[in-house]
Amino acid sequence: MSESSRYPTSLGTSTRDEINLMGHSLAEDLMGTVGFAELAFWMTANRRPTSGELRTFEAVLVALADHGFTPTAIAARLTYLSAPESIQGAIASGLLGGGSRFLGVTEDTGKFLNQALADAECPVPQTDAEFDDLARKVILEARAEKAVIPGLGHPVHKDGDPRTPRLLQIAEEGGTRGAHLRLFEAIGRVSEEVLGKKLPLNGAGVCGAALADIGLPVDFLRGFALLARTAGLLGQIAEERRNPVANKIYMHVDRNAEYTPCSTEEEV
Amino acid sequence: MSESSRYPTSLGTSTRDEINLMGHSLAEDLMGTVGFAELAFWMTANRRPTSGELRTFEAVLVALADHGFTPTAIAARLTYLSAPESIQGAIASGLLGGGSRFLGVTEDTGKFLNQALADAECPVPQTDAEFDDLARKVILEARAEKAVIPGLGHPVHKDGDPRTPRLLQIAEEGGTRGAHLRLFEAIGRVSEEVLGKKLPLNGAGVCGAALADIGLPVDFLRGFALLARTAGLLGQIAEERRNPVANKIYMHVDRNAEYTPCSTEEEV
Amino acid sequence: MSESSRYPTSLGTSTRDEINLMGHSLAEDLMGTVGFAELAFWMTANRRPTSGELRTFEAVLVALADHGFTPTAIAARLTYLSAPESIQGAIASGLLGGGSRFLGVTEDTGKFLNQALADAECPVPQTDAEFDDLARKVILEARAEKAVIPGLGHPVHKDGDPRTPRLLQIAEEGGTRGAHLRLFEAIGRVSEEVLGKKLPLNGAGVCGAALADIGLPVDFLRGFALLARTAGLLGQIAEERRNPVANKIYMHVDRNAEYTPCSTEEEV
Amino acid sequence: MSESSRYPTSLGTSTRDEINLMGHSLAEDLMGTVGFAELAFWMTANRRPTSGELRTFEAVLVALADHGFTPTAIAARLTYLSAPESIQGAIASGLLGGGSRFLGVTEDTGKFLNQALADAECPVPQTDAEFDDLARKVILEARAEKAVIPGLGHPVHKDGDPRTPRLLQIAEEGGTRGAHLRLFEAIGRVSEEVLGKKLPLNGAGVCGAALADIGLPVDFLRGFALLARTAGLLGQIAEERRNPVANKIYMHVDRNAEYTPCSTEEEV
Repeated sequence: MSESSRYPTSLGTSTRDEINLMGHSLAEDLMGTVGFAELAFWMTANRRPTSGELRTFEAVLVALADHGFTPTAIAARLTYLSAPESIQGAIASGLLGGGSRFLGVTEDTGKFLNQALADAECPVPQTDAEFDDLARKVILEARAEKAVIPGLGHPVHKDGDPRTPRLLQIAEEGGTRGAHLRLFEAIGRVSEEVLGKKLPLNGAGVCGAALADIGLPVDFLRGFALLARTAGLLGQIAEERRNPVANKIYMHVDRNAEYTPCSTEEEV
Repeated sequence: MSESSRYPTSLGTSTRDEINLMGHSLAEDLMGTVGFAELAFWMTANRRPTSGELRTFEAVLVALADHGFTPTAIAARLTYLSAPESIQGAIASGLLGGGSRFLGVTEDTGKFLNQALADAECPVPQTDAEFDDLARKVILEARAEKAVIPGLGHPVHKDGDPRTPRLLQIAEEGGTRGAHLRLFEAIGRVSEEVLGKKLPLNGAGVCGAALADIGLPVDFLRGFALLARTAGLLGQIAEERRNPVANKIYMHVDRNAEYTPCSTEEEV
Repeated sequence: MSESSRYPTSLGTSTRDEINLMGHSLAEDLMGTVGFAELAFWMTANRRPTSGELRTFEAVLVALADHGFTPTAIAARLTYLSAPESIQGAIASGLLGGGSRFLGVTEDTGKFLNQALADAECPVPQTDAEFDDLARKVILEARAEKAVIPGLGHPVHKDGDPRTPRLLQIAEEGGTRGAHLRLFEAIGRVSEEVLGKKLPLNGAGVCGAALADIGLPVDFLRGFALLARTAGLLGQIAEERRNPVANKIYMHVDRNAEYTPCSTEEEV
Repeated sequence: MSESSRYPTSLGTSTRDEINLMGHSLAEDLMGTVGFAELAFWMTANRRPTSGELRTFEAVLVALADHGFTPTAIAARLTYLSAPESIQGAIASGLLGGGSRFLGVTEDTGKFLNQALADAECPVPQTDAEFDDLARKVILEARAEKAVIPGLGHPVHKDGDPRTPRLLQIAEEGGTRGAHLRLFEAIGRVSEEVLGKKLPLNGAGVCGAALADIGLPVDFLRGFALLARTAGLLGQIAEERRNPVANKIYMHVDRNAEYTPCSTEEEV
């Protein structure tokens, strides 16, 4: 078969005697040696993380795994109710809500900060005061375009999201608190002065900044939120099996349905 | 609102100041302290794993993460080609192949071994000889019912799947080599004598036995295969972005389509 | 390229100047001539339906399209809420609930009746009395195996499902009331006498019997329920855009979440 | 329960004796009277189509149902191969490719034309010459922004897509050839003069223009492409059951995998 019919890959390959992943023996080099989150980092970033990067990465995955009865968790439970023989369908159903609104903030924040740093007049800010200047500039620009600052504000945790200081601490401890996190912190410091109201730095946003600082591609951050959420959805479905609520939710909605004609509706 | 309108959960809950998961503070108790795979175990098994259990669990997730260009990986890449703006759709598309044939062996093996142990005349086997006796019995029963023994045989690794001895070693080291793995090993030892041909214990099967031995619910093992595969699919899509092959696969199939009328086809 | 690399298909093929479907010119022979439901029948049954078959088929698709706030409709709306940029994700999320419990009755009924007719001592029943005898036999057998009779009973329409007599009438008018529908009717007639309680023949079941009678493959009937439901889900999402309820459902569930520790939960 | 806990809907509702859809009796008013495509139009547009609108709508659905071995069809077949017990998963997997690239042209064209008409200085063009003027203007604007004109050009049907003249004829016959189709035709007439090369008006684009002319919401047109494609995917999976190719595709890709190290890959 011609050259052009070959499909290159640096991931999984195998022969009769060997199974390799990224050029390493799966059994000898990876199983028992490399952790699961470490492998996920490696397969997507194409390099093994440092121990500090890995601890930050695991902390982000833990932070994003489950937020209780989110729309995605409810959708997964309802799908499990309807088709319990297909766990993959329930998981997929939940992940499909991982779009712009509920899981998108992590990626949006990483991209926003990355763009701001790329657009900054060189050199990259070094001091907190320089980061504050850049933060003022990007907030003013966003305000002028009537754009929201991703990662700023939270509908519930109005006085501060507890994940934010904790992840900053973990990143600092692991030596991974870089320009994205520092700019994000600066936005938190100056936003009240510029916008006239106090808004917290939210957890989804700080996760995006932290992932960008450990070198993961900013236009792929939603993928890591989806990985985290897969574990959360497994937990939700495991709980639905032990202690179901989906039928009760369905009954609640169905019983409170109210026929409301559409003004443009017509006769047969 | 009445008692009956409450939705109980032991997973994520939050107040204005707190975010909890399984009754613990997400920020204070879990982030930076509990690893991602550990959290996935905890949320589904409803207890924290021992260090030996965790190492076995991570080794299983690593073993199942990616097997190269499987049907699920190809489906995910083709979906990404068609809808690159929706990473969640590509991941979901790949996971939906996690059904009976390609990801099902892990769960099937765990269930089969679990049932065999439950059906065994008490007491549970202790010695290798006793496990061999039980293995002979279940193989003969399966043969009488023309049923396959899940986890036995592999289309490629005919002389042995390298994951199998490695996972057994990891389980032994972590103190998690229990009755499921021991019965699985016994099946490997006696199958040639009973069936008349040598068949290897495959990697998907040994993963199912290992997960059953660390106490995960045997009728939910497919869920862990799906979690592992989510990381693999992220890797596949990340590679598709760097070094695409999906369009080439599509072109190959499309150009080799051959109109073949169906005998029962009719005229308009 | 060798013969073995060709992919046969009787469906869509094209050249620079032509687009064909099932060997016919899409533009000249099908568009404007063949209806959409007719095409769906043709592509799956591999023959064009008669006008009577088509009217029955369309009536079934109309009957199964939407049942209001079902779990699948709610899941699709919640997914749309989370990822409104991806309509395909919302539709897919809803369809994934099309499994054994909520959309499965149609296929289960078709299969059950088909098997009963195949198992019947020849000749196939001709008179109502003969169908009644066969119905008594299969109900008694199902009772002996503690199996449910698919299509019998309804949680809400206890005195009769209005779709059932209507579909029987349409089938009769179109000349498609065959052995499956007649056996289904017989089950309705004799079930009270055999089981001791009155149970209605439900709409999902009569649809399965009607699809089997027009020659569609009984182990693929769920596919037609999914096609019907796709139209219903489009309607649900179109309404969610005009008059949203998903956020209100989410808020209701989230606000009524109640942390309930799991007895086996452990300390960090 | 308070007013605020009611969920309004104009779609499916039911009581013990009745099943309604859009305020009409499903059994008495819709089944056997309203066709399936007609119902899909009605549920999304919130009004019943005229007979001309319906014929155009059905022709569009027929045109978009199946295009042979597209990435979505291949993905659905591969998913069916892996999880044949879950037809809903295979359909969903295929639909998830219904995003920006392969099914997006229909919606993109409808939106583009709609915006161009909305932006046109009033009054709306009446004569072909006026439509040509508007077409020249929007093509020049798109070129200035380096934007593509959706619906213009085709990788295979370079001399003309046979669906385009046929759909225009059907729309003309049904009295539904309105401003969107007329502007689309004008783009076809003047594009060579403005862009310097001959490009055909493609089938996906003309479908979008036709759907916009029958009053369907232009930002929801992808939904109708997904409905059409559901029928096509059913056909693909029905064929995969009779005459499978997915395993052969998988084998082709797997056997031609070629390990290609990534330059940034590291040692364990």
